[in-house]
Order: sequence, then structure tokens, then C-alpha cells
Amino acid sequence: MTILILALTLLGAVSASSAGPPPHDDFAATARYVVHRNNWGSLASTSTHQPIKGKPFVDAFSVSDGPVGNSTGVPYFFFSPLERTVQDLEANPFATLLVSEVQSGYCKNVKWDPEDPRCAKIHLSGKVVPVPEDETNFAKNSLFSRHPIMAEWYKMPDHQFYFAKMEIEDVFVLDFFGGGHSVSPQDYYKATL
Amino acid sequence: MTILILALTLLGAVSASSAGPPPHDDFAATARYVVHRNNWGSLASTSTHQPIKGKPFVDAFSVSDGPVGNSTGVPYFFFSPLERTVQDLEANPFATLLVSEVQSGYCKNVKWDPEDPRCAKIHLSGKVVPVPEDETNFAKNSLFSRHPIMAEWYKMPDHQFYFAKMEIEDVFVLDFFGGGHSVSPQDYYKATL
Repeated sequence: MTILILALTLLGAVSASSAGPPPHDDFAATARYVVHRNNWGSLASTSTHQPIKGKPFVDAFSVSDGPVGNSTGVPYFFFSPLERTVQDLEANPFATLLVSEVQSGYCKNVKWDPEDPRCAKIHLSGKVVPVPEDETNFAKNSLFSRHPIMAEWYKMPDHQFYFAKMEIEDVFVLDFFGGGHSVSPQDYYKATL
Repeated sequence: MTILILALTLLGAVSASSAGPPPHDDFAATARYVVHRNNWGSLASTSTHQPIKGKPFVDAFSVSDGPVGNSTGVPYFFFSPLERTVQDLEANPFATLLVSEVQSGYCKNVKWDPEDPRCAKIHLSGKVVPVPEDETNFAKNSLFSRHPIMAEWYKMPDHQFYFAKMEIEDVFVLDFFGGGHSVSPQDYYKATL
């Protein structure tokens, strides 16, 4: 298994570096590219905690949509019920996940301000739910291959970590001048990197 | 003015690099340090847009709490009513801003996963409102000195850019193992870098 993960990682790294970003007017492919390239995102929930109960909250979460080179588009998370956002989502699972090229350092390298519209921002909205049992192994491999420390967290039973994923209902992409674009989940999932 | 901004920038860069992060148990100072060091954040609002009306949304915004070396703790923004989040906030101004050390590349450099609790995450919650006229020059200098492209955006009247800021009501800090901590706005503002 270790060799398989290593092989996929090396393959993915080569593939990712040689492919480069899709054309900016291919919004579905751009969304998939940015989501797969970045390994964390900002997850917005409706707070269940005082003094901001009922108000929007946001936290940073490690994410993976598949091992490097094997993108599915599905954002997987490793959740502990000790986290505020996880408590929020257990009460109300609807959330928006932002994944942006500003995170990777790419925009800084090409001297684009974080708010420059060319610095692609992908918003995925939907319900965040526990991963069904038959998908657990894939979620685990997706996350642990890109976030190795999670294997240690898995050994901490008091944190009660579990796998979760977003069931995407809406994709919104801003990656160029002229405003953002909605992408259907169907087009998002069928795009290839 | 250019020389003044340049001098402040150089002064700030030296000061920031020599000071290093505050002790992790000084939550107010850590919050101020992370907010001043990073020049963007993830802003969560309650959406006014279909198909996610009434649900949480999040976008990345360029932020400044003062020119480098002159931190105030107040997050200033440069808003256009063309942006979805700005439209959300004009209907309901309450928001949460996440600023995290994961953004700066610091956590990656020291080999901490984005979700490692030592990779400090600062959540500022409150109303985001237009900057009053007597504060406009400070907001403008705070933002334009750290985001030079904004001077160009200022010349685009059709975008109707204006200065906004968060009136902070709650600060929540996670910067170490053992869970997060609330900080009063008073303690946050009086902390020194």
C-alpha cells in the first residue's frame, strides 16, 4: 500500500506540474484543477456557538478530493466532534467551502493581489455529511496520503475522528475579469484534469 | 507620500522578521500578530443569492489592519457592490473573518498540516460597515500600501469601490493543542506586537 501511494504521489506530482491550469473559460475544469491542487479550504457554517449563534462562521480544514493524480472532485474531510464547525454542521449540515489559488502561493508568485479576479476562487456549496461505510477506505486513502499526520490523529479515540464529505449542490467560479460563473455539479464532476 | 510608505514598509518588514510570533498562551497578541502578518482572509457571510440564499457563503478578501509596522487590529476592506459578499453584507452586515498562519506558508515551512492546531487560526466576528469619512484616509493608506493594485481599482468608477471595516464583537483563537480561546475585543485591541 505504501508503495502504491508513493507511486501515485510521484505520478500525480509530475502530472500536476506538467499540465498547468486549464483555460480560464473552462470553469468546470478550473474548479476541479484548483480543488485538486490545494490541500485545504475555508469552510463556512452557521454557528451554534454563543455569542455568534445563528451567524456565519468559517474555519480552515484540511481537504482532499483524492490521492494526488486521482481527483474525484468530492471534498473529503476528517472531522472531530470537538471542533466548533463540526458541531455546527451536525446541527445544520449546509456549508460553503472556498478553495483558492491564493492559498498555494501561485498568485503571489505571479504578482497578483489576493483579490485579483485572475487569482481563481472556487466556492462549493452543499451538505456536509458522514462518509458511507463503503466509501470509507477511499476517503481515508485520499486524506491520509496527502495529510500523513492524520494517521496519528486516527489513534486518538477521545477525539472521535470520522470521515465526512460535501454533497455538492452548487459550484461558483471566479477566475478572470468580468464576474463569476455558476457550474452545475454534473459538469463539475465530469470535467477531467 | 511614496517615500513615507516605502520607509514604513521597510521598517515594518525588519520589525516583523525580528520579532517572531508571541508566546502561544498570549492569545490576544497572537491574534494581532497573525492578523497583521497576513494580507488576506476568508470572509463568511449569509448569502442573499440563489440557490444558497440564507446559507453560509465565504470568499477571500484582501485585508489590512494598518500599514506594515502600524497595526491597529481593525480589518479594513476595499469593497465593490458588484461582489456577492458585499451584496450579502449590505443586507446583513454580520460576518466572520478567518485569518490563519496557514495562508503565509509558515505552517508548510515548519511541516505542520493545515489543520495542525499549532497552525494559528484567528476568527474575528462582527458587523462589516462602511468606514466613516474621518477614517477614510487611514483605511486607504492601510490598504493601498499593502495592496498597490487597489490604486488602479480606485480609478474604475463603475465598480463603485468603497472602504469598509469590521466592528469586532468576538475574537476566537486556536493556536495550540487543547482547544480554542475567546478573547475580548478590548484585550485584542490593547495587545501590542
